[in-house]
Amino acid sequence: MTNYPSLIEIKQAHIRIQPFIHRTPLLTSQAINEIADAELYFKCENFQKVGAFKARGAANAVSKLGEEAKKNGVATHSSGNHAAALARAASVAGIPAYIVMPSNAPEIKKKAVKGYGGKIIECEPTLQARETTLDEVVKETGATFIHPYDNYDVIEGQATCALEMWEEGIAFDALMAPVGGGGLLGGTALTSHYLSPDTKIIAGEPEGADDAFRSFQAKKLIPMQGPKTIADGLLTSLGKLNFEIILKHVDDIVTVSDEEIISAMRLIYERMKIVIEPSCAVPLAALLKNKKHFEDQKVGIILSGGNVDLAKLPFK
Amino acid sequence: MTNYPSLIEIKQAHIRIQPFIHRTPLLTSQAINEIADAELYFKCENFQKVGAFKARGAANAVSKLGEEAKKNGVATHSSGNHAAALARAASVAGIPAYIVMPSNAPEIKKKAVKGYGGKIIECEPTLQARETTLDEVVKETGATFIHPYDNYDVIEGQATCALEMWEEGIAFDALMAPVGGGGLLGGTALTSHYLSPDTKIIAGEPEGADDAFRSFQAKKLIPMQGPKTIADGLLTSLGKLNFEIILKHVDDIVTVSDEEIISAMRLIYERMKIVIEPSCAVPLAALLKNKKHFEDQKVGIILSGGNVDLAKLPFK
Repeated sequence: MTNYPSLIEIKQAHIRIQPFIHRTPLLTSQAINEIADAELYFKCENFQKVGAFKARGAANAVSKLGEEAKKNGVATHSSGNHAAALARAASVAGIPAYIVMPSNAPEIKKKAVKGYGGKIIECEPTLQARETTLDEVVKETGATFIHPYDNYDVIEGQATCALEMWEEGIAFDALMAPVGGGGLLGGTALTSHYLSPDTKIIAGEPEGADDAFRSFQAKKLIPMQGPKTIADGLLTSLGKLNFEIILKHVDDIVTVSDEEIISAMRLIYERMKIVIEPSCAVPLAALLKNKKHFEDQKVGIILSGGNVDLAKLPFK
Repeated sequence: MTNYPSLIEIKQAHIRIQPFIHRTPLLTSQAINEIADAELYFKCENFQKVGAFKARGAANAVSKLGEEAKKNGVATHSSGNHAAALARAASVAGIPAYIVMPSNAPEIKKKAVKGYGGKIIECEPTLQARETTLDEVVKETGATFIHPYDNYDVIEGQATCALEMWEEGIAFDALMAPVGGGGLLGGTALTSHYLSPDTKIIAGEPEGADDAFRSFQAKKLIPMQGPKTIADGLLTSLGKLNFEIILKHVDDIVTVSDEEIISAMRLIYERMKIVIEPSCAVPLAALLKNKKHFEDQKVGIILSGGNVDLAKLPFK
């Protein structure tokens, strides 16, 4: 017995968050299909609210809070998309959000959180400082800590992305997602396990932040030390709850170099004319690196987000 | 009496070219609506085949050729999207396309033409050399010259873009398009004149290539000398046939600076997460410059294309 979100719980989450999220399109590109020798379907979470799939998990976690807990608001530490997603979900619910951010977080990320009415608490740029500061905030305010990925309500929310993909009626041979903390990958694997257990679930991971790959191989959680990759959404180490699901329901994790990521990213910009962040290009890079495995298959690829610094695009 | 394309001819063109083009989506952005204080609908021709609306006019012109003319193929001089669009339309029809390009045309543009099987004839980078070389090619091959915009079949094809917008059932108060040679603007104005004569048709034009604006004011065609703007798709001077339609059916032409274009372009990248070329951002820039005129209105904006050099995006 586990307490993983069940299929019915994932469906309930989808109904619960529907007023707060976009149903994002599943796009195809004839040009990329020709290059890949496969039939690819891109789930465009770059068009999602706050520009990333994180809107799903945050909306679900906030919506599930009891009335009493809601009064005190929510808190998290994050310098990425979860921070903005949680601030927005809280704002929609009319409750406070306390976001602990490292003092060196990019101004644009702080601006996004403030734009949604989130209260930023700055701390030193170390994991320890983040956690200590968060503990203090939670103690002071009584806010509920919503972890960016190591949280079943969050995983349940992220699982609704694959649910929408399956609702399109396509018999995917494989589904691919990037892996950082493992919320999206875990949710995708769960939904697909229920709806199409034979579909392969394959993650893409940057070589410079390959803790999920190494943990998956070793069958034990090996945290990341000093990650270094252009895919800045995938720097975090895999979560505990996420790792359990991944060990059970994910078929493979493929690592790719930054060069391969940039090349796949360029392909998506040039051929699909859409803006994605580097992390999104990781699964396509993994597919193109292993083209033979996917020949003539129907593959669903989750493009996880589109929040990128336009002044620092890696194209030459 | 004029021999402008009639509504029924535009509808026939739409049916004729449907197998060769995408029906592009009409997207909205809550964030941009809030900034603009209006309800904007973006027709995404950046997702069109060859990455620009030019696919419509070229497909229509090629499809309308008689069997005899088809045998000898088509020819044009262009270094932009029309070159690729004509090469593709000819390739689909199984006929040759002769594209006269200046020797200094970007490698990426030549590659696109070659990719569609077009035959490139290089010439000196002057308008005179282009025209002389084209004359020679036409004399030698018997190919039919398809002008990029000063051609009713091309205008009729571009007019199908607005036709699709009107088919969405939205009561636009205004429709906006960029103006370079005037094919898209002329076609948009014609279709809207037939279907909703009270809708305002407004063009955006770069200050550094403002011949349409000046011609419109003076009511006579004033060709552009030495245009200079980031909107490289709008460098050409207005066509004769196009100008006649524009004088009759366009309500206003608004000029904007390159700075205003870049700022509108950034907004579209950041908020809509889509890739557009600078020319596309000109109408939104024109709207934002004149916000009061559009307050609470429903405005359709044509995003004309997405072929941009990713290594040279103007964001800082």
